[in-house]
Amino acid sequence: MGKYCMGVDVGGTTVKIGLFDTEGNLQDNWEIVTRKDEGGSYILSDIAASLLEKWNTMGIQKEDIIGIGIGIPGPIKEDGTVLKCANLGWGVFNVADEVRNLTGIDNVKVGNDANVAALGEMWKGGGKGYQDIVMITLGTGVGGGVIIGGKILTGSKGAAGEIGHITVNYQEEDTCGCGKRGCLEQFASATGIVKEAKRLLITSEKPSMLREVQYLSAKAIFDCAKEGDELANVLVEQLGYYLGMAASHIAAVVDPDAFVIGGGVSRAGEILTTVVKKYYEQNTMFALKNKEFLLAKLENDAGIFGCAKMVLE
Amino acid sequence: MGKYCMGVDVGGTTVKIGLFDTEGNLQDNWEIVTRKDEGGSYILSDIAASLLEKWNTMGIQKEDIIGIGIGIPGPIKEDGTVLKCANLGWGVFNVADEVRNLTGIDNVKVGNDANVAALGEMWKGGGKGYQDIVMITLGTGVGGGVIIGGKILTGSKGAAGEIGHITVNYQEEDTCGCGKRGCLEQFASATGIVKEAKRLLITSEKPSMLREVQYLSAKAIFDCAKEGDELANVLVEQLGYYLGMAASHIAAVVDPDAFVIGGGVSRAGEILTTVVKKYYEQNTMFALKNKEFLLAKLENDAGIFGCAKMVLE
Repeated sequence: MGKYCMGVDVGGTTVKIGLFDTEGNLQDNWEIVTRKDEGGSYILSDIAASLLEKWNTMGIQKEDIIGIGIGIPGPIKEDGTVLKCANLGWGVFNVADEVRNLTGIDNVKVGNDANVAALGEMWKGGGKGYQDIVMITLGTGVGGGVIIGGKILTGSKGAAGEIGHITVNYQEEDTCGCGKRGCLEQFASATGIVKEAKRLLITSEKPSMLREVQYLSAKAIFDCAKEGDELANVLVEQLGYYLGMAASHIAAVVDPDAFVIGGGVSRAGEILTTVVKKYYEQNTMFALKNKEFLLAKLENDAGIFGCAKMVLE
Repeated sequence: MGKYCMGVDVGGTTVKIGLFDTEGNLQDNWEIVTRKDEGGSYILSDIAASLLEKWNTMGIQKEDIIGIGIGIPGPIKEDGTVLKCANLGWGVFNVADEVRNLTGIDNVKVGNDANVAALGEMWKGGGKGYQDIVMITLGTGVGGGVIIGGKILTGSKGAAGEIGHITVNYQEEDTCGCGKRGCLEQFASATGIVKEAKRLLITSEKPSMLREVQYLSAKAIFDCAKEGDELANVLVEQLGYYLGMAASHIAAVVDPDAFVIGGGVSRAGEILTTVVKKYYEQNTMFALKNKEFLLAKLENDAGIFGCAKMVLE
């Protein structure tokens, strides 16, 4: 029986790596640069070299390693096959097999980065204590991950949990980055929130502290809302409506115990979970009412925690 | 190793029972009345008596029975606990334990009726060959079932797959049976389709064969659409839009291989799957495009097949 497991969260700029004991305590963590040259062909060998060096330095034998979990910013099938990953320059190949060959460790699991972050939050973060959660990450875009029975729901083509592209406004005429219109991401991402604020400030003639803000941001909108600004509160209610409606669609499909909201926008705190829950409860059928809306806790470490959890199952 | 498994689909009026071999071939099937007197307290003992009598008649020993799968018209947790079932008069209790006691068979699995029907269609019906499907049943109401990795997705409170109550029209003012507004069921159930037709026939002044139909029904609308009637085609397109939009929400959460459409309305045939697929593809992001839209095949037997499949896993 091994003593450690590794979590490796591959991002477009850096790779975050964590060394965990079997209880999920983070013993050590570090980062390496994501070398994207030549179709990203160095990325996995850089990771393997960094792992082997760390084990060597710490006097850890390979038989002490239970496994390696890896998060990738793209769609991944259950067997570890990446289906093209534009962020890393990768085509289609089996990441798990490659890492097995490079490290000599058999137990290698690979998942989509948003999904492993959701698993991490379930295990050690905002969703701790639950087995069925949906994570909604509000950052530059809107991502998501569905955890059922304590495991990642991958989907047939690795695209489960793409909840940023649920249509929440059937009348919207602007086009989303994905090519369709009215996606949750157009309203609930950091950029979407600011765009909606600019729209409202143009169409409304009411006074607002937001008109004086030098850099309009999701944070500025929440700060003004907390101080009682009327237009900022209109924007927070609208955000709550769109997120609550999307959560009601999600619940009708997978009926989770809880929603965990993360990403930069979630730093707004309980004002966000409270308003989302309000609109969720208004727009969901009786059998699906009374879900928990929780804040994520692990921030950028959610990925390495989720990666470690994948190999401990 | 046993030779047979039993599928028991409990409905509000009759209980359908099937005797299957381990390959899933239906060897015998029959029905008994659902006795709902005294809080439905006779239902499970009636079922047990009917099973024991059949085994006796056919000379089947208990050790020949691999297990009993049971479908119930209400929310069921993974452990077999029913969470109130108004259709049968039941409160909260463990159906699996009760059936184990009554029959002496240990392997008893219990599922929601819509979910087991979805499992049956995956195994031997319209979804054969796939492991990840979502079934949409268009009957008096709109039901659904989510099958992931060949297994029923139950949800934390047994309410996964309640897709009839996904909001597809954010402006609708009429209230659904579930208490909220704009649910898929209000537009895509047999009754919802007729209601929408009546709305259109009042608001439009165009001529239509539908104005001459004695009993307006989903079937009449599809029949007239196939004959080129303009208003009937407007209604079919609208139905396709609502179902396609709901399917796009569902896909963004669980990314299935295929959608299987069943229930009485699906007798319309490929005109239905074609129009739903059209609107699905228009309203889904690139990573989720190109799903199959298939017709269910097992009709009222889907439940007993799914029940049998539950115990063969």
